[in-house]
Amino acid sequence: MNRVYFDHAATTPVDKRVLEAMLPYFSESFGNPSSVLIEEGGPARQAVDEARKKVAELVGAEPDEIIFTSSATESNNLAIKGLALANKQRGTRILFSEIEHYSIMHQADFLRSIGFDVDFVKVDEFGLLNMADLKKKVTKGTILVSVMHANMEIGTVQPVKEIARFLKEQNVLFHSDGAGTCGQVPVDVKDLGVDAMTISGHQYHGPKGAAALFLRKGVPARPIIHGGFQEMGLRAGTENVAAIVGLGEASALATAEMTEKVPRIRRLGQKLMAGIGTITYLHFTGHPAERLPGHVSFWIEFVEGESLLLWLNLNGVAASTGSACASNVLAADETGLKASHVLTAVGVPPEICHGSITFSLGRDNTEEEVDYVLSVLPTIVDRLREMSPLYEQAKKGGI
Amino acid sequence: MNRVYFDHAATTPVDKRVLEAMLPYFSESFGNPSSVLIEEGGPARQAVDEARKKVAELVGAEPDEIIFTSSATESNNLAIKGLALANKQRGTRILFSEIEHYSIMHQADFLRSIGFDVDFVKVDEFGLLNMADLKKKVTKGTILVSVMHANMEIGTVQPVKEIARFLKEQNVLFHSDGAGTCGQVPVDVKDLGVDAMTISGHQYHGPKGAAALFLRKGVPARPIIHGGFQEMGLRAGTENVAAIVGLGEASALATAEMTEKVPRIRRLGQKLMAGIGTITYLHFTGHPAERLPGHVSFWIEFVEGESLLLWLNLNGVAASTGSACASNVLAADETGLKASHVLTAVGVPPEICHGSITFSLGRDNTEEEVDYVLSVLPTIVDRLREMSPLYEQAKKGGI
Repeated sequence: MNRVYFDHAATTPVDKRVLEAMLPYFSESFGNPSSVLIEEGGPARQAVDEARKKVAELVGAEPDEIIFTSSATESNNLAIKGLALANKQRGTRILFSEIEHYSIMHQADFLRSIGFDVDFVKVDEFGLLNMADLKKKVTKGTILVSVMHANMEIGTVQPVKEIARFLKEQNVLFHSDGAGTCGQVPVDVKDLGVDAMTISGHQYHGPKGAAALFLRKGVPARPIIHGGFQEMGLRAGTENVAAIVGLGEASALATAEMTEKVPRIRRLGQKLMAGIGTITYLHFTGHPAERLPGHVSFWIEFVEGESLLLWLNLNGVAASTGSACASNVLAADETGLKASHVLTAVGVPPEICHGSITFSLGRDNTEEEVDYVLSVLPTIVDRLREMSPLYEQAKKGGI
Repeated sequence: MNRVYFDHAATTPVDKRVLEAMLPYFSESFGNPSSVLIEEGGPARQAVDEARKKVAELVGAEPDEIIFTSSATESNNLAIKGLALANKQRGTRILFSEIEHYSIMHQADFLRSIGFDVDFVKVDEFGLLNMADLKKKVTKGTILVSVMHANMEIGTVQPVKEIARFLKEQNVLFHSDGAGTCGQVPVDVKDLGVDAMTISGHQYHGPKGAAALFLRKGVPARPIIHGGFQEMGLRAGTENVAAIVGLGEASALATAEMTEKVPRIRRLGQKLMAGIGTITYLHFTGHPAERLPGHVSFWIEFVEGESLLLWLNLNGVAASTGSACASNVLAADETGLKASHVLTAVGVPPEICHGSITFSLGRDNTEEEVDYVLSVLPTIVDRLREMSPLYEQAKKGGI
């Protein structure tokens, strides 16, 4: 069997059709889209505009509500800093859920250093936002809340529509990080009622290097990268034309294939989850129902997530522990036992959880691959447990 | 004759060898470089590291002094904001030359809004930095100066080494925007003595979407895009692996071909300049000797730069007026006569200069193309002048 790639939350291969669409924009139609007065600029300008329409269509937005960036991380930074700076006269309080991606969380210190007050809203044991805590924390002077659409480590999908309704009543802007959902499940920004949403193409077979931010018309924002007048003045820099074309094409394909893809991936995920559920001392993370299709996440008592990941890798299976953006840190940590802020937030006890595993399935995965993983996983778990003295004690009833 | 592309300052086509090097990183070696614990992450991580070495070699830096970004604009933003924020306790005064690119200039208001004091250093009529004005303006509390290596609108190359020497004595950090020089002429950051330098790959046949910032070891800086721990903690976001590989390959090619390329381009530029010099009422801009090879810039009394650009375009010649990043604004301006801050700074009289033209030659241009441009340009100029009543007056000695 080839490698089994169950790590679509980290990244996905570029679709061959997407790459095909990108190719003319490297060496042939290579113009600078800002060179509007010469022939070379035309095709580049047109290609960027076309891509903007396709991304807009994917999420139910208008083309001029789509701002291209270089990554979901940059989109998250533009959303938070850009909205914060443009709305400072209304207030300085900003709320994040406590399970946001690092690209939201790690903005807090900077925002505080320039006069904002950042606080965090709790989630429950399934990772769902605690609405009571949100309502308590949206006090006078709150201008912006950011709650991700879905968490890629534990799979939980948030009640974004409900959150948006409440925040609209409070006249508070709402950004949602849709890196885990846009292009992967149906998303309609107008129906959800968000003011801003992050879109990440490389999670749905687009290229790395192009992402987008949906920004509702009329919402005041400021750029974080200053310079030329690209992207309606909100994001300076020569456009990455080829990657933007790829993001557009990936978005069009996702729109076209969504209804076929989602149920199939969901079914595979459910089968995987059912099979894994037979392993003892195993705890699933995230919400049992309100979760991403094809997303299975768990931790096992007495088993280190990283060791499990390495053994899965040796057996030809790609998965994640924590988020990809955090894993280089985990690897650098001598103990290898650094707790994820997401697991901590959902109440996983750090003294017995030594890292979790995330399987994130994609459009090209097969039932055969699910069967294969289910055939190798229990053996790996058994072997790792045998190395754990704590497990021996537990078996004897000593813990 | 095919199109004559004399607009390399705006952007360049991706070299076929560069694209070839990039191709495996879209759909095959597509892993996330942060996924260090699984097989998929390995080739991506290694490719990014290899590219870092090649970019470092191009400018005489160490690999861990190279930070990848998405554009020269982002590099300029990271350099200025990143150094400003990390050095605020030492002072709050920042100086830019008055002819910097928009991606430097347009940071001023933001910096002021967060407590910095930004001032501008004058240039002379050739665009060379006025050293006396610099020395006067580097007062107590000055932490950072940014002077571009070469201006892409007027071609002038600054005495960066001399500026660096002075600023080092004053214990002031020095960033230089090398978007117009790195990969195009020999650059050695250690010899120049800069603390930070912007490198733009798409100006030397690399792809759009990847650029770099040289940051001297030990110089404290802060990220402007917060999130994961990529790029030594200075630039978060999943790496644009394919484009970074392309930037590396373009850098390696530039290193290898520099000694052959530069004299050839310089010679073509000199021939073009000599031929254009016969047109009456024509004024060259920038320094006659200290300038980029193959860079010819000028304005003509009674002739609008934009009209000239459009007519050149119709005759198959691509050139620029102002910088590409500004041209969409110029086009949007109803009068089409908005003065460039660069031309204003070098003392071009706005009442008779209606826009300048920049020809920027590249490695693939030929003598035949230079001859062609020299054959069509005088005719176009004559036609445009005949439409100008002021020119009629001038001919009669009335102005």
